[in-house]
Amino acid sequence: MHFASDNAGPVHPGVMEALAAANQGHAPAYGGDDLSARSVARIREVFEAPRAEVFLVASGTAANAILLASLAQPWATVFAAETAHIHEDECGATEFMSGGSKITLVGGEHGKLDAGALAETITGLGGRGVHGVAPGPVSVTNVTERGTLYTAREIAAIAAVARAAGVPLHMDGARFANAVAALGCTPAEITWRAGVDALSLGATKNGCLGAEALVVFDPALAGEVERRRMRAGHLLSKHRFLAAQFLAWFEADLWLDLAARANAAAARLTRGLRERPEVAFRHEPQANMLFVDMPRALHRHLIARGAVYNLWSGRLDGDDDDEPLTARLVCDWSTTDAEIDAFLDLF
Amino acid sequence: MHFASDNAGPVHPGVMEALAAANQGHAPAYGGDDLSARSVARIREVFEAPRAEVFLVASGTAANAILLASLAQPWATVFAAETAHIHEDECGATEFMSGGSKITLVGGEHGKLDAGALAETITGLGGRGVHGVAPGPVSVTNVTERGTLYTAREIAAIAAVARAAGVPLHMDGARFANAVAALGCTPAEITWRAGVDALSLGATKNGCLGAEALVVFDPALAGEVERRRMRAGHLLSKHRFLAAQFLAWFEADLWLDLAARANAAAARLTRGLRERPEVAFRHEPQANMLFVDMPRALHRHLIARGAVYNLWSGRLDGDDDDEPLTARLVCDWSTTDAEIDAFLDLF
Amino acid sequence: MHFASDNAGPVHPGVMEALAAANQGHAPAYGGDDLSARSVARIREVFEAPRAEVFLVASGTAANAILLASLAQPWATVFAAETAHIHEDECGATEFMSGGSKITLVGGEHGKLDAGALAETITGLGGRGVHGVAPGPVSVTNVTERGTLYTAREIAAIAAVARAAGVPLHMDGARFANAVAALGCTPAEITWRAGVDALSLGATKNGCLGAEALVVFDPALAGEVERRRMRAGHLLSKHRFLAAQFLAWFEADLWLDLAARANAAAARLTRGLRERPEVAFRHEPQANMLFVDMPRALHRHLIARGAVYNLWSGRLDGDDDDEPLTARLVCDWSTTDAEIDAFLDLF
Amino acid sequence: MHFASDNAGPVHPGVMEALAAANQGHAPAYGGDDLSARSVARIREVFEAPRAEVFLVASGTAANAILLASLAQPWATVFAAETAHIHEDECGATEFMSGGSKITLVGGEHGKLDAGALAETITGLGGRGVHGVAPGPVSVTNVTERGTLYTAREIAAIAAVARAAGVPLHMDGARFANAVAALGCTPAEITWRAGVDALSLGATKNGCLGAEALVVFDPALAGEVERRRMRAGHLLSKHRFLAAQFLAWFEADLWLDLAARANAAAARLTRGLRERPEVAFRHEPQANMLFVDMPRALHRHLIARGAVYNLWSGRLDGDDDDEPLTARLVCDWSTTDAEIDAFLDLF
Repeated sequence: MHFASDNAGPVHPGVMEALAAANQGHAPAYGGDDLSARSVARIREVFEAPRAEVFLVASGTAANAILLASLAQPWATVFAAETAHIHEDECGATEFMSGGSKITLVGGEHGKLDAGALAETITGLGGRGVHGVAPGPVSVTNVTERGTLYTAREIAAIAAVARAAGVPLHMDGARFANAVAALGCTPAEITWRAGVDALSLGATKNGCLGAEALVVFDPALAGEVERRRMRAGHLLSKHRFLAAQFLAWFEADLWLDLAARANAAAARLTRGLRERPEVAFRHEPQANMLFVDMPRALHRHLIARGAVYNLWSGRLDGDDDDEPLTARLVCDWSTTDAEIDAFLDLF
Repeated sequence: MHFASDNAGPVHPGVMEALAAANQGHAPAYGGDDLSARSVARIREVFEAPRAEVFLVASGTAANAILLASLAQPWATVFAAETAHIHEDECGATEFMSGGSKITLVGGEHGKLDAGALAETITGLGGRGVHGVAPGPVSVTNVTERGTLYTAREIAAIAAVARAAGVPLHMDGARFANAVAALGCTPAEITWRAGVDALSLGATKNGCLGAEALVVFDPALAGEVERRRMRAGHLLSKHRFLAAQFLAWFEADLWLDLAARANAAAARLTRGLRERPEVAFRHEPQANMLFVDMPRALHRHLIARGAVYNLWSGRLDGDDDDEPLTARLVCDWSTTDAEIDAFLDLF
Repeated sequence: MHFASDNAGPVHPGVMEALAAANQGHAPAYGGDDLSARSVARIREVFEAPRAEVFLVASGTAANAILLASLAQPWATVFAAETAHIHEDECGATEFMSGGSKITLVGGEHGKLDAGALAETITGLGGRGVHGVAPGPVSVTNVTERGTLYTAREIAAIAAVARAAGVPLHMDGARFANAVAALGCTPAEITWRAGVDALSLGATKNGCLGAEALVVFDPALAGEVERRRMRAGHLLSKHRFLAAQFLAWFEADLWLDLAARANAAAARLTRGLRERPEVAFRHEPQANMLFVDMPRALHRHLIARGAVYNLWSGRLDGDDDDEPLTARLVCDWSTTDAEIDAFLDLF
Repeated sequence: MHFASDNAGPVHPGVMEALAAANQGHAPAYGGDDLSARSVARIREVFEAPRAEVFLVASGTAANAILLASLAQPWATVFAAETAHIHEDECGATEFMSGGSKITLVGGEHGKLDAGALAETITGLGGRGVHGVAPGPVSVTNVTERGTLYTAREIAAIAAVARAAGVPLHMDGARFANAVAALGCTPAEITWRAGVDALSLGATKNGCLGAEALVVFDPALAGEVERRRMRAGHLLSKHRFLAAQFLAWFEADLWLDLAARANAAAARLTRGLRERPEVAFRHEPQANMLFVDMPRALHRHLIARGAVYNLWSGRLDGDDDDEPLTARLVCDWSTTDAEIDAFLDLF
C-alpha cells in the first residue's frame, strides 16, 4: 500500500538488466560511447525530431534548472503555475542556475497555467523598461503537479502566447510518459508540434534508476546547455549507464507500457475511492496521481493500518477528528491491483 | 589495452549485484531509506568519525564544488595546486557553485601543493583589506592529478598552514581508495587525523557506477551542504541506489582490494616501461596513473595497434617524429596482466 | 508642474555647498576620512543606535540588494508586498546580489504587507524541508510605494511575526524621511524600537545628489555587508562626498524639514484634487505621493498643458476618452505652491 | 605631501561648478535628461566613435565588472596581467558580476601583459573541451597598475592575439587620461583603432567626484550592459550629475590638461628621486605613478615628517633598518611643485 511517490518505486527489471548489459569492459567516458550516441538517436526518433539536441542527467531538478538557465537571461523571469515543481520543490534551483532569475506565478486551476492569465501577466510586466525584469521562458508541467493533463490544444494556446511575447516554452515532463499514455497522443504532438521548445523528459519516476533527458527541439536554443551541465557537475563520467536506461525504457514501448500501468492503477484507486462518501476529490485525476480530502480520523486509521502516502495539507495530530486533510496518492508501474484493493478494504 | 581513464572502466560485479538487491519494492525517496542510513553509518565507521556528516551524490565535480561552496564565502579564494581538477577540469564548477569565488594557484611539484608555498601565497594575499579576496579553503588532491601521493605527514604540514590562516582543508579524493591502498594507512590517518576538514570521497573511478560521498568531519562546517546539494539538483530521488553502491564497495574491503589491483597493474606497467629506453617518466608513479614522455612516432605506432590512452600534451599529427609527447596511462581494477603485457609487447 | 518623481528633483543648496566644502585637498579614500567617520557617528546619533553598523552607497537599489543579500541565504526567500520596489523596480537586483534567492509576495492593501498574511505565508512555506526554499528576511517599505504609511505599531506587529519565524526585518526607507515627518515620530521608533533589523536609508529622493545609508541595527547581522558592497562596486573611492551629503542632510534637521515640505505640497495637491469630481483617489495619500484615477481625456489635457507625471496604468493614446487611467503624482522638497496651483488651475 | 592615491585627491573646481550648474529644477531621472544625452554624444565625439554605446556609473570597479560580465560567459576565463586591478583589488567583482567566471593570469613585465605569453596561455587552455573553461575577454590596463604604458602598437599586438582566439579586448582605463596625455596620441588610437572593444573610462582619479564611463565600441557587444548596470544598482537616478562631470571634464580638454599636470608632477618627483642614491626604481615611471625601493629607516623618516603614501611591500615596523621596502607614490592634478620639493627636501 505504497502511494507516497512514484520516485519511491522500484526500477523495472528490464532497466536493471540493461545496466548489467552495459557493463562490458571499457567505454569512453562523458558520453563519448556508443550507447550514449544510440540513446540520443533513439530520443530523436521517438520525438520525430531529428535536429533536437539531447543531453542526459540523473535528476529532474537538474534537467529543469539547466534548461531554464539556458533559456533565461539572469534578469528574466520564468512564468509558471503556482504549483510548479520549479517553484515549490526545487529549493530555488532555477534561480541559482540562472544567476538570479525570478519565477512569476501565473493563475490557473487544477495545477494548470491558464493561457489567458499568462497573456495578462506578461502584459502586466511591461512598461517598466530596464527597471523591471525581462520576460523569460514559460514553463508548464505535464502531467501537472496536481495529476491533471494539458491537451495538445491547451499547450498550443500557451505556446501562442509565449511566441507572441518572444519567449520560449519549456515543459517539465517529470511524468511525461504518463501524459502521453493518458492522452493517447504521440510525444511530438504535445511537445514541438504544439510549440514546446525544450522538454525535461523524466524517466526516473517511471521505471528507471535515475535518468532524465534535456530535449531541446530548436538546436539554436541549446548553445549553453552543455557548459551549464558540466559546470553544475551533471555530466556523469560513466555516462553509458544513463544511456542504457533510456534505451531499455524505449525498447518495445516499455515506457508507455509502464506509464499505462501506473495510470490504470490510479484509475482503479479512483473508482474505489469514489464509492467512499468520506472522500472528496480536489482535482479530477487524469494520470497517476490523486488528491483527495478525507477526515483526519480516517487518515489516522489508514496510516495505522499500514497505508503509506503523504498529507498535502494539515497534520495527523490535530484535535478535530472531522477536519478534512488533503492526501496525495501516487501510483507507479509496480502498483498492483491487490495493493489497491487492500487499501480500499481498509475503509 | 585501455588506459584512457579509470572512469572509462567497468563497474565491479559486486556493485551491480548490490544495485539489483536494492531494487526491492518501495523505499522512501531522497535518502530517507534504510540503505541510505546504513551507508552513512558505514562511512563514519570506516573513517572512525562518528560525528562526520555524510552526503551522497553521483559525480565528483558535484562533490568538490558543493563542498567548496559550503566552505568558501563568495568573496574568498580557494588555494589549490596548478594541476588541481577543480581548476583545470571542472569548467569553473567551484566558482559557479560558490557564487563567484576564485581559485589561487599555489606552487609545488609533481601535482602536489607545497606547504611552504601555501604559507607564502596566503601571506601575499594579505594587506589589501576589503579590496582583496579573503583567504578561503585549501584543497589538496590525493592521489594527485599526476599520480603521486601526499603522505599523512605532508597533509599535516599543509593543514598546519591552513589552521594558522584560519581556513579549512578540503581533500579531493577522486582516487582516495588508491591513496589509502598505496600508503597502507587507515582512511582516518590521511584525513581528519592529519587535519582534513572535508573530503570528496570518490567511488566512481574505483568500481562503482556513479557514487561520491561528501564527508564533513567537523559537523559545524556542514550547515550549507544539504541545501546546496538540493538546489544544484544533486539530491537524487532514488537515493538508495547511491547508498547501495557504497555499502557494496566497503563490503569485505572491496574498495581497497580494487584499488590495490589498479595500483598493482600500474606498477607492472611502470616496470615494463622502465625497460624501454624511449620512455621517460615525468613523475614517479605512486598509485594507478603514469605520465610518460615518448616520441611522437612511438605514440602513433602504439595507438595504431589499438592502445587507448590520452595525450597530455602535443598532437599526434605533428611533423617531428622524434618530438616527445606526454601520455597519461591509467589503470583501474579491471586492468589485466595480459592487457599490460600485450601493450608492452607493442614496443 | 513636475510631479514625475522625487528623484527627478534638484539637490538642496545646502547639500551642494557641503560637497564644495568637502573638496579640500586630499583625504583618505574608501571611507577612511574624517567626514566619513563623522557621518557614521551622526547616523548612529540620529537613530539613537550607538552600536549600529553604517555603510554608505550612491543608489537605493544598491542599498536594498546589498542588505538583503547579507540577510538572506541564497536558498532563502524574501517576503515583501506585491508593490515592493525590490520586486517590481530593481530588475532582480536582490535575486542577483544574493546568488539566487526568491521574493515571496505577501498580501495586503494600499502598498502595505499585512502581518496576518505574512504569518500565513510563512507557515504555508513550511513542511517541504530541503525541497522548499528557506524563510528569509521580511522587507517592508516606509513610505510605501503607494504613498501610504506603516505606523510603529504596524511595524511592530510585522516584526513580531518575523521574530517568531526566526527571520530578520528589513525596511526599504527610500522615503524614510517623509515617513518620519508624516508620523511625527523619532527615527528609532519606526525602526529598531519597532523591531527593524536593517534599514535602507534614502537621502537621494529628499534633497541629496546620490546618497543612501545601510543601517544595520544589530551588528551581528552586518558581517557580510562590507565585502558585498565592495565586490558589487559600491564602495566609492571619494567616499567623503557621500558622507558630506549625509552630514548636511542631518544639519539642523534639514532632512525632516525637506520631507515636511514635500509632504505639505502633496497635502495641498490632495486638497485641490479632492474638489475635482473627475478625480478619484486609489489610496489615501499620507506622505508625498498621490495615486489618482482620471479620465483619459483629462490626462491628455493636463499633459498637453505641460504637466509632468507618470501614468501608473493605461496609455494616453487609447480610444475611450472616459476610461479612467491611474496617475502617480509625487512632490519633493522643491515643489512650490505656485506650481501646484497652476496645475490645479488646468482642470 | 600626499602621494597615497589619485583617488584621494580633490575634485577640480570646474567639475564642482558643473555639478552646481546642473542642479536646475527637475530633470528626467535615470539618464533621460539632456545632459546625459549630451555626455554620451561628447564621449562618442572624443573617441571618434559615433556608434559606440556609452553608459555612466560612479565607480571603476563597477565599470570593469559590468563590462567584463557582459563580455564573458559565466564559464569563461578573463585573461589579465598578475597586477591587474580586477584580479587584485576588486574583491572578486568580475567573478561575482559574471556569475562565476575565472581570471587567468598572463605573464609580462612591469605591469604589462605580454602578447606572446597571452597567445601561449590561450593555447594552453585548449584541448579540454567542455571540461575546461572557455577563453573569454582579454583585459589590459592603461596606464598599468605599475605606472607604465602600453603603446598603440603593443595594444594592437595583444588585440591581434585576442582576435585570433575569437575573444574581445577590454581596457581598464582608470587612468586613461594619463595614458593619452603621456603617449601624445588620440583616444581612438589606443582604443578601437588598436583593437580595443570596450573601455572602462575613468574620470574619478583625474579631477572628478565619481564618474566612469563604459564605452563599448562595437555596439553588438553592448546588449547586456544596460540590464547588468541596472540590476547591480549602478543606474543612478540623478544621472545628470554623472553626465555633468564628464561634460566639464572634456570641456576645453580639461581632462588632458589635468592628466598632463599629474604626469608632469610625477616626472618632477622622478627626477628628484633619481638623485637620491638610496632610492631604486622598480619600474620606469611613464605616467603619474612611481614604484620605488627605499630602506625601511628612510620610509620611517619620511612618514614621520608628514609624507603620505602607501607601502607596496613590507612593514614599517620591522627590525632591519636597511631592508628595502617598496613604496607607491602617486601624483594627481592637484600635486604642486612646492609639495614635491618639500618632499624631496626631506631626504
